[in-house]
Amino acid sequence: MKAFVMKEIGRVGFLEKPVPGLGPGDALVRTTRALICTSDTHTVKGGIGPRQDLTLGHEAVGVVEAVGGEVKDFRPGDRVLAGAITPDWGDLSSQNGYPSQSGAPLGGFKFANLKDGVFAEYFHVNEADANLARIPDGIPDEAAVYCADMLSTGFMGAEHGNIPMGGTVAVLAQGPVGLMVTAGARLLGAGLVIGVESVPGRQKLARLYGADAIVDFTKEDVVERVLELTDGQGVDTAVEALGADATFQTCVRITKPGGTISNTGYFGEGEFVSIPRVEWGVGMADKTIATGLCPGGRLRMERLLRVLENKRLDPTHLTTHEFRFDEMERAFEVADKKLEDVVKVLITF
Amino acid sequence: MKAFVMKEIGRVGFLEKPVPGLGPGDALVRTTRALICTSDTHTVKGGIGPRQDLTLGHEAVGVVEAVGGEVKDFRPGDRVLAGAITPDWGDLSSQNGYPSQSGAPLGGFKFANLKDGVFAEYFHVNEADANLARIPDGIPDEAAVYCADMLSTGFMGAEHGNIPMGGTVAVLAQGPVGLMVTAGARLLGAGLVIGVESVPGRQKLARLYGADAIVDFTKEDVVERVLELTDGQGVDTAVEALGADATFQTCVRITKPGGTISNTGYFGEGEFVSIPRVEWGVGMADKTIATGLCPGGRLRMERLLRVLENKRLDPTHLTTHEFRFDEMERAFEVADKKLEDVVKVLITF
Amino acid sequence: MKAFVMKEIGRVGFLEKPVPGLGPGDALVRTTRALICTSDTHTVKGGIGPRQDLTLGHEAVGVVEAVGGEVKDFRPGDRVLAGAITPDWGDLSSQNGYPSQSGAPLGGFKFANLKDGVFAEYFHVNEADANLARIPDGIPDEAAVYCADMLSTGFMGAEHGNIPMGGTVAVLAQGPVGLMVTAGARLLGAGLVIGVESVPGRQKLARLYGADAIVDFTKEDVVERVLELTDGQGVDTAVEALGADATFQTCVRITKPGGTISNTGYFGEGEFVSIPRVEWGVGMADKTIATGLCPGGRLRMERLLRVLENKRLDPTHLTTHEFRFDEMERAFEVADKKLEDVVKVLITF
Amino acid sequence: MKAFVMKEIGRVGFLEKPVPGLGPGDALVRTTRALICTSDTHTVKGGIGPRQDLTLGHEAVGVVEAVGGEVKDFRPGDRVLAGAITPDWGDLSSQNGYPSQSGAPLGGFKFANLKDGVFAEYFHVNEADANLARIPDGIPDEAAVYCADMLSTGFMGAEHGNIPMGGTVAVLAQGPVGLMVTAGARLLGAGLVIGVESVPGRQKLARLYGADAIVDFTKEDVVERVLELTDGQGVDTAVEALGADATFQTCVRITKPGGTISNTGYFGEGEFVSIPRVEWGVGMADKTIATGLCPGGRLRMERLLRVLENKRLDPTHLTTHEFRFDEMERAFEVADKKLEDVVKVLITF
Repeated sequence: MKAFVMKEIGRVGFLEKPVPGLGPGDALVRTTRALICTSDTHTVKGGIGPRQDLTLGHEAVGVVEAVGGEVKDFRPGDRVLAGAITPDWGDLSSQNGYPSQSGAPLGGFKFANLKDGVFAEYFHVNEADANLARIPDGIPDEAAVYCADMLSTGFMGAEHGNIPMGGTVAVLAQGPVGLMVTAGARLLGAGLVIGVESVPGRQKLARLYGADAIVDFTKEDVVERVLELTDGQGVDTAVEALGADATFQTCVRITKPGGTISNTGYFGEGEFVSIPRVEWGVGMADKTIATGLCPGGRLRMERLLRVLENKRLDPTHLTTHEFRFDEMERAFEVADKKLEDVVKVLITF
Repeated sequence: MKAFVMKEIGRVGFLEKPVPGLGPGDALVRTTRALICTSDTHTVKGGIGPRQDLTLGHEAVGVVEAVGGEVKDFRPGDRVLAGAITPDWGDLSSQNGYPSQSGAPLGGFKFANLKDGVFAEYFHVNEADANLARIPDGIPDEAAVYCADMLSTGFMGAEHGNIPMGGTVAVLAQGPVGLMVTAGARLLGAGLVIGVESVPGRQKLARLYGADAIVDFTKEDVVERVLELTDGQGVDTAVEALGADATFQTCVRITKPGGTISNTGYFGEGEFVSIPRVEWGVGMADKTIATGLCPGGRLRMERLLRVLENKRLDPTHLTTHEFRFDEMERAFEVADKKLEDVVKVLITF
Repeated sequence: MKAFVMKEIGRVGFLEKPVPGLGPGDALVRTTRALICTSDTHTVKGGIGPRQDLTLGHEAVGVVEAVGGEVKDFRPGDRVLAGAITPDWGDLSSQNGYPSQSGAPLGGFKFANLKDGVFAEYFHVNEADANLARIPDGIPDEAAVYCADMLSTGFMGAEHGNIPMGGTVAVLAQGPVGLMVTAGARLLGAGLVIGVESVPGRQKLARLYGADAIVDFTKEDVVERVLELTDGQGVDTAVEALGADATFQTCVRITKPGGTISNTGYFGEGEFVSIPRVEWGVGMADKTIATGLCPGGRLRMERLLRVLENKRLDPTHLTTHEFRFDEMERAFEVADKKLEDVVKVLITF
Repeated sequence: MKAFVMKEIGRVGFLEKPVPGLGPGDALVRTTRALICTSDTHTVKGGIGPRQDLTLGHEAVGVVEAVGGEVKDFRPGDRVLAGAITPDWGDLSSQNGYPSQSGAPLGGFKFANLKDGVFAEYFHVNEADANLARIPDGIPDEAAVYCADMLSTGFMGAEHGNIPMGGTVAVLAQGPVGLMVTAGARLLGAGLVIGVESVPGRQKLARLYGADAIVDFTKEDVVERVLELTDGQGVDTAVEALGADATFQTCVRITKPGGTISNTGYFGEGEFVSIPRVEWGVGMADKTIATGLCPGGRLRMERLLRVLENKRLDPTHLTTHEFRFDEMERAFEVADKKLEDVVKVLITF
């Protein structure tokens, strides 16, 4: 089968690979739609270390092609979604409530990391009964595919933020994950959602997905402006959706005592991430810093699909570019170099 | 001043009373709008025991007329909202996180219970700095007044329900509190909200406030229908919004293992409320039963006002009837006898 | 192999059975020690419906005899403990945080319910890597075996009780589970633990396991006495450890507003379990009722074994009787008829 | 009256001051015992900025001398404890569940910060009904005085750590607060408590208060050793009880994915506190960082007194030195310069 791989650090391309084999609980899925994630581009730059001929991609939907002998709930022909994270559900960390950390820190992140990803004609899913979800008829593939990572990670950013009903939330910044944090904060009862973003197209999407106010960090001081918008108190919840030290610091500064800083960003550089000491209340201001990795699993995916099915949200506005799988090299370049105000690139197989 | 009182069990009417005096932390508010609550009618029937010449009403907004010497944040002329529940914030139960229970079980419920209520030209507010909230300019009195009890109680029903993002919720029934539970469940991320109600007008409001499906208990079996709507699993959260033993039992029956039954109903009759033993998993199915009394206090009210200010919800569709204060006797009759498909009755002073 | 079975409702005895076969993730354990549980006697009386030749028992330790081809962490010769509850870890209910409910309500309860139990020379464990725990050298079998159910269920009763540091707890009654609730409440920071019990031997054990006060319901009014012991406020947490309607009612009555009633009891009779309406605050006193079924799984068992290893607790004082496996009929009679002040009966294989 | 004050940065001494006046809800307490806190010495060095003639001290017990006109529950002659933190209970932050942050970040910290402290013949308590607790007869002053800060802060470190029953905890380091974290972790069900400390006297106290293992950072690598003690997994909970960047970093490194870093330390230096990026899982390992400031208030104090009353803990082993109030200058020198292996210095009035 045809696969789009990271040949080595810095180099991508197509490769012919064998169709993956199946263990007794596994499934093979024929890919129909996929999305390119910024983290795919990080991976190619060496973000998770060297890899050779690793198939990229972790956001996809498709049709079940084959299942192992112990799979009970899925059969060939089922239209399915797999989460970007496919945990080992019996693992100690899963039993502890943290399936994304199963096997090892971030160990639920298997696609395009511990095994081949989804940018191929077929992909392999471990513990299929626990990691696949059937896509309801009313939801097209090009919407369902957003559940795999964008909705799950973005909503997690809001969920970890402990937002009180009617509370105040700031989301820094409004890339695809940040936009889904914004949508998630709205879905979870935030009374005021402030989107921090400078790119006009993303500001517009932020409004569409529920931001009540936009703060442009190139034009105003974020800390001052957020305090102004919150009567000097700071927000109940600040969500980091960029993965930059400066943004993280701002999050701590704009959060009120008793509030939560919720991180969704991938921090790729530097030895340390910096907590501003004084604004952290010298370690005593009851400001909590929460983190996490995209929740996966069938239950999560079923719930996210229900969010789409009952029209709470239309994620397809994130799709700024569409390509066929055989145009993958150009598609990847657009995503990697952030050309043409790209937000998300959809691939059709 | 003129007050509308419960003269004794079963009898209401106007009475001339002195304007309330103020302690050092208190405020006097000139009433501008109020709502009649079903619990006012329960009170008159003797629901909380005998009372003599007790001013009724606990949902109101107004303008500050005077404040005690230690009040810092409010002054005459401020347009304000007081929660239906006005806790003693230093009390042990408040320190324990349950201000509605301050002083005694349900002890935060002072208006028209432990002291005179708000159906009068003026009403008294204890701990004004902690129990009043300024109403933002954009919110008219007739909307703000819904925060006092309807939004606070209804949203509480959803908040106590521990609704997962995209989870399933059933709300039994769709009276004014139930409708605000429905709205609250939507605001808190429910992926499917099922409203149980038989009255056509209320079914319509349920749709308006966010119910995805309506179950009419006069036409179908609620347990069967809810299981059908949830792939046989039952809901994550069932909210009791009526206060009837049969409804409570249904809530236990339709909740999945690991789910929550959240009560907002006032149970006025019988020695016991009945948990169906088998469907409760013989005491072992991880079904939690939560209860509570309308959260009050300035922070809560400020957050609810923010929900209105940023257009998450328009509660005024609940207002089916409007009267002047001098028409209070007729107004009360409409509410009490549930005439003309009444939902809420708004009083203008 | 030899097995001690429920032949039909009301009749037990030995039976020769084949050694269980193994699926790829399963393990076969040679039994070394087991405990008889009150619920075994309920089962024989028909508590979970008719069964034919079902091997009884769900509390055991042993030595791994064989493992399936996909088991990674255990091998023949390992001394191991299996929880009484052995969940399907990939199931939706497990993903939802309720593994004891996996597959169906109470579906994690497989031993002596959905499959043969542990009162046999060998027993079968599903998902061995996730449901077995290695027993540290310092812990003898006769102590480790208490983790399977007694510690796990008893501690759960305390854990679900949301006990504040220094809070007040009442435990009704002091059977083997109740005694472990008492121990668990102490381990979780309760400042006052009140054991309700009338049997002198159990009162003595209650003191040993940490009860600060004993209330004998045959000699004093439990509600009055508990209120007296808590300055009239009621307890933060009341744990039902009997499974009787009257005891459950008392729990609701003695719990303060904002407190928790935590159930561990199996309710075997009647159509309903009764919540006393007024003391429940007419549905508004912020009293939460929590339930659950003995948590299982490797992580839970490892943590409980650590509790024993570091000498937090010695559960062997619960063992009032010891028998060899070939004396099982007499042993079961002692447990069933509660002869000779029995608390727990230990079986050696 | 005689008061021991910070005259300016770096200089302390006695001063004659007027007895404090009382507002309607306040109380005046005649001091009987007090403890010197490390933070008193930080204050004198300028840790909270310049102060002139500020009475020092925030840990004390005494006898009520006088009360304001609205105080209901206390009267002259009552033997009482005041928490180090005396919140404004009606404040928005208190309503939000964070009374220590009332009024301003860390605003509940009034003694020896926003007003005169307790190192004087009399001290003033705001909101006396909410901030005082009566000391039960069985508890001597020299034990009760530890509740004000040491138990409350130390236990908070454990409480914020989200310790699972039987979980693993490391406490860095074993000063007086760290020792009470150790005791608190044991009281909250930790199955393994690791104390990190190099001073022999403190190591010994750590054992006494419940540490199962001691790691001496001058002799072994803390990260390696803690991983070794936890089968390579890291701890469920690491508590920072020193306030140093290096120690904080170690806490992040030794915590397992899904675990919690709980801070009790006061960070007095540097612009930033540093999170080690990789061991924090690049922001995705579900490691939560929690902080807080000593919980105050009557309910907290009553619960801590109950812990002492029922013999869960004897804090008086922390007292290494005792002085009379007139020896305060020498006493303060011992505490400030950490002479003679001082842990805590008790002052008798």
